[in-house]
Amino acid sequence: ESRVQHQQRVVKLAVIPGDGIGPEVVAEAEKVLDAATAGSGILFERTRFSLGAARFLETGDTLSDADLEAIKAHDAILLGAVGGVPGDPRLKDANIERGLLLKLRFELDHYVNLRPSKLYDGAPGPLAAPGDIDFVVVREGTEGPYVGNGGSIRRGTPHEVANETSVNTAYGVERVVRYAFDLAERRRKKLTLVHKTNVLVHAGGIWQRIVDAVAQEHPDVAVDYLHVDAATIFLVTNPGRFDVIVTDNLFGDILTDLAGAVTGGIGLAASGNINPDGAFPSMFEPVHGSAPDIAGQQLADPTAAILSVALLLDHLGLRDEAARVTRAVEEDVAARGDARTTTQIGDAIVARVQA
Amino acid sequence: ESRVQHQQRVVKLAVIPGDGIGPEVVAEAEKVLDAATAGSGILFERTRFSLGAARFLETGDTLSDADLEAIKAHDAILLGAVGGVPGDPRLKDANIERGLLLKLRFELDHYVNLRPSKLYDGAPGPLAAPGDIDFVVVREGTEGPYVGNGGSIRRGTPHEVANETSVNTAYGVERVVRYAFDLAERRRKKLTLVHKTNVLVHAGGIWQRIVDAVAQEHPDVAVDYLHVDAATIFLVTNPGRFDVIVTDNLFGDILTDLAGAVTGGIGLAASGNINPDGAFPSMFEPVHGSAPDIAGQQLADPTAAILSVALLLDHLGLRDEAARVTRAVEEDVAARGDARTTTQIGDAIVARVQA
Ligand SMILES: CC(C)[C@H](C(=O)O)[C@@H](O)C(=O)O
Ligand SMILES: CC(C)[C@H](C(=O)O)[C@@H](O)C(=O)O
Repeated sequence: ESRVQHQQRVVKLAVIPGDGIGPEVVAEAEKVLDAATAGSGILFERTRFSLGAARFLETGDTLSDADLEAIKAHDAILLGAVGGVPGDPRLKDANIERGLLLKLRFELDHYVNLRPSKLYDGAPGPLAAPGDIDFVVVREGTEGPYVGNGGSIRRGTPHEVANETSVNTAYGVERVVRYAFDLAERRRKKLTLVHKTNVLVHAGGIWQRIVDAVAQEHPDVAVDYLHVDAATIFLVTNPGRFDVIVTDNLFGDILTDLAGAVTGGIGLAASGNINPDGAFPSMFEPVHGSAPDIAGQQLADPTAAILSVALLLDHLGLRDEAARVTRAVEEDVAARGDARTTTQIGDAIVARVQA
Repeated sequence: ESRVQHQQRVVKLAVIPGDGIGPEVVAEAEKVLDAATAGSGILFERTRFSLGAARFLETGDTLSDADLEAIKAHDAILLGAVGGVPGDPRLKDANIERGLLLKLRFELDHYVNLRPSKLYDGAPGPLAAPGDIDFVVVREGTEGPYVGNGGSIRRGTPHEVANETSVNTAYGVERVVRYAFDLAERRRKKLTLVHKTNVLVHAGGIWQRIVDAVAQEHPDVAVDYLHVDAATIFLVTNPGRFDVIVTDNLFGDILTDLAGAVTGGIGLAASGNINPDGAFPSMFEPVHGSAPDIAGQQLADPTAAILSVALLLDHLGLRDEAARVTRAVEEDVAARGDARTTTQIGDAIVARVQA
């Protein structure tokens, strides 16, 4: 009996399939998770949470306190995508993004939004000469312009003033900067801070000073700085120059969509919303949205969700299993030919994981 | 005598060559200006202003009230680029960008920052299949996150909090949105608002509502909306979808650098900082910076400065002269072969203007 207890590690996984293509891609991701961990003695005990635009339309709420508490009782979260049909009048006052996705990131203190960008052999991409692309954006996840600290006066009149404040704390910036340096130490030892320090002197100043200070403790990491506008240029002219990028919540949002595009499209872009302290479950999700226009048609590429499973496994310390998933995706991308359904892509990757 | 007075239109032009490659590219731009207006009866009466990092190092000031008043007495401004060597310790506390460039844009109420992006035949670019690219970004120039409305407390301590506020007014947003719609009417009648309304609900909300309202007056203009992250994807996967983009100061900064990169590099990207009311002189400048690393070596491409002259001529109502400059650049780009010096490129374009 003690042997069984020893072998059987139970991971409590909250699954939020969400809206649009979310359920389709999550189904494939779960198949790959099962294949990668079969025989490992690890049991993924899953709880499904019906959250998103569909749930809002049914019940009128986005994320109740009870949902949040239930989710917190898990070890990790796998999320598909949330968001209804753009322009749906019934969703006019529901901000699913803020009320659900960002609420999870903020409440679960996901201060590291980890977004790797790698150009796999055979992946399509818009660049004529992309070169080797392999970098990670460490995007801050709990501060900056995303805090919802804004308001307006005289709304709807010619005298309206609408403000939105970026809030940056030493506490919040330092912890994500430290994470980025540690990551750079384990990679090619290059870190690029991206901000707009020449204009956003206060928000940018705190980032620059903290990066400079933490850099002292990492003399072997080469540090440079780019304004966000210049960073977008390099992402299309010389993406190979990047190893680890550390940046704020908004710039990270922008850079990672562009990075996804130059590395084969957001059909391949995975992300982890990580609470490195382990105080709350981390959440893994494809960077893409719910794409309601193609939902239910087996047209979605589940690869981004599957690569998010690799990040999840890695986060749980299951490095071999994670590597197996990544390798299977790499092989699948290299072998891509004719168009396949969502399930066909999932099955192909499952087969490679099992091989 | 009345005949002479009639023919001789005098345009008072303030010229700010600036730092780094600024003087080199402005010299070529002025040659092209002369060639394009020769025999037109228009006299460009020039005043040179020595402003920028070099001037700061000499005198300790960036833009005095007297400079500003003197500049205001002109009809238009041609600016090269300003900014010293990055990391120069003597410039540590000088923010040339805020103290000079942004100060000019704000004090002269340049609420339209006009940035056309066109892929010329023969222009190099990073995209494998760029397609036809021809759009204009109408970037707001006097508000948003650029207002300098921020501060920090407990600076340099673990308890620091640094804020930066984006300020958006109905007055400021409406005027630039109206300009963008008018421009779309004269072009392909398509306008895209770019913002991040799902997260920046207050700053984004005012933009969305004003675009919706002004759209009512332009039923023939097709209006759509993109989040800034999605817009960067389209800029590399389908830039041909854009005609007029209207956006705030920060998003406009980011999008136009990326747009410059996909249309042959910022060596070709021109801009106009425009006060459409004519209350203050408008300012024309290449999008690129002062690039001190290559300054004085005849390595800079003066084309962006030359195309800024085309925007200047257009702004002054000299449409034929503007078109002649644009055509000359188009021909020059199409004929590009071996590397040329800054002056050689300028001379070649002058010759085409004269032909
Ligand atoms: C949906 C939206 C709130 C979200 C963000 O801006 O973070 C998305 O764009 C992302 O990058 O995950
Ligand atoms: C130099 C800098 C202040 C400026 C800006 O951010 O507007 C530049 O990047 C530009 O785009 O003209």
